[in-house]
Amino acid sequence: MPVEPNAEIEITAFDWVPDFARGLVRDLRPRWACEELGLPYRERLISAVERPQWYYAEQPWGQVPYVRDGDICLFESGANLVHLAEREGRLLPPGGQARADVLSWLFAAFNSVEPSFMELANVTIFSAGQDWAQARLPGLLEQVGKRLDRLEQALDGREWLAGEFSIADIAMVTILRIPRDNALITDRPALLAYRSRGEARPAFQRALEAQLAAFSEQPPIAA
Amino acid sequence: MPVEPNAEIEITAFDWVPDFARGLVRDLRPRWACEELGLPYRERLISAVERPQWYYAEQPWGQVPYVRDGDICLFESGANLVHLAEREGRLLPPGGQARADVLSWLFAAFNSVEPSFMELANVTIFSAGQDWAQARLPGLLEQVGKRLDRLEQALDGREWLAGEFSIADIAMVTILRIPRDNALITDRPALLAYRSRGEARPAFQRALEAQLAAFSEQPPIAA
Repeated sequence: MPVEPNAEIEITAFDWVPDFARGLVRDLRPRWACEELGLPYRERLISAVERPQWYYAEQPWGQVPYVRDGDICLFESGANLVHLAEREGRLLPPGGQARADVLSWLFAAFNSVEPSFMELANVTIFSAGQDWAQARLPGLLEQVGKRLDRLEQALDGREWLAGEFSIADIAMVTILRIPRDNALITDRPALLAYRSRGEARPAFQRALEAQLAAFSEQPPIAA
Repeated sequence: MPVEPNAEIEITAFDWVPDFARGLVRDLRPRWACEELGLPYRERLISAVERPQWYYAEQPWGQVPYVRDGDICLFESGANLVHLAEREGRLLPPGGQARADVLSWLFAAFNSVEPSFMELANVTIFSAGQDWAQARLPGLLEQVGKRLDRLEQALDGREWLAGEFSIADIAMVTILRIPRDNALITDRPALLAYRSRGEARPAFQRALEAQLAAFSEQPPIAA
C-alpha cells in the first residue's frame, strides 16, 4: 500500500469533508496515479472548514491536492498527474501521436467536461436553495447532456480514451464520478461502462480507500 | 509573419464569429505560441455557424482550435500549447521546479480560472435574456472576484506567472481577456498590468491581427 509516512512524495488532502463529497475530492487523482505507478506517498491533512492561512502561499486557491515530490512542488491535480507520469515514464507516452492523444484528452477532461459538472454541483448542491438555481437546471442539464453525447460517441468501442490506460483516464473517470447516479451518466451506456472499468482497477480501489480512511468521522469544531 | 500556406503546422479556426467574440476565439493561443516560437503555420477555416459534420471526428466538441503538425493532431488549446512548446524546447522548461511551476499555472488557467469566465459569458451574453440569469449574476461576480483576488495576490511583484514568460502566460492572458473591461479585471491593478504586458508582446499582436484578418465581414448565409 503506497501510503507510507516517510515517503518522498507528499499529497495534501482534507481531514474531513461532508458525506456527499467523500470519494470525490481531487486528491483522489494523484493518489490513484501513485497507486498505478507503485509510488509510495505520505499524506498531509489540512482542514477544509478552517483553511489554514499559510496554505494559500502554497496553493493559491486553498484547494487540494497539493503535491510535494522531494524539492518539487505542484498545485492543480492536472499538473500533479503530468508530473507523476513523467517522473516514471508511464501513463503519458513520451512523444508522437500517443502523447498528443493523452494530452488532448487530459485537457478535454479539465477544460471541456469538469467545468459543466462544477456548475451542476453548484446548482444542485451549493446554491440549491437560491431562486435562480431551479430555473437554471433544465438548460444546464441539456447543455451538459449534449457534451456528454459527444463523449459517449468518442468512447464507443474504446477501452480507454487514448489507447493504453493513461492519466487522461484518471482525470476523466474521477470527473465522471461527480454526477454519480445522475441520468446524465446512467443513460449513456458507453460512458457508464467506461467509468466502471476505471473504478474496477485495483489501483483506483486502493486510492479511494485511502482517501476515505483519512477522513475523521466528526466534523471539526470551529474555533 | 508565420501565416504561410505551405507551413507544416495547420491551425483550424472559424471563418466568421460575431463582433463580441473577435479576438477571443481560442485559436489565438496556438497562433500566439507559434509567433513566440517563430513557427510558420497555415490556417484551415471552418464555419462556426454550420459546423461541418466531419469535423466532429477530429474535434469531439466541434470547437476550435485543432492543430495538425505533420502527422500529429491535437485538440484542446491547452494540449496545443504543450505540444508546440515541447516541439521547440521553449516556453515550458524541461524539468525541475521550473517545469512544475509552468504546469501548475497552465492547469490553473484552464481549470480554476477559465470555467468561471465561461459561466460569466453564459450569464451575461448567451443566456442574458433568461429569468435566472439576472438573479445568478451577483453571486457569480462575488465568487469570481474572490478567485481573482487570489490571482491578484499571486501576481504581485511578478512579471509572469512562473518566472520566464511561458505557455501558462499565453493561456492566462488570453483567458483574462474574456471579461474585457469588466471591473473584475480593471479594479485589480496587478491583474490588469499583467494582462497588458502580455498583450503588448509583438507576438501577441501578430497573432491577434492574424485571427482578425481571417474573419469575413459578413456572416455566412445559412444553407
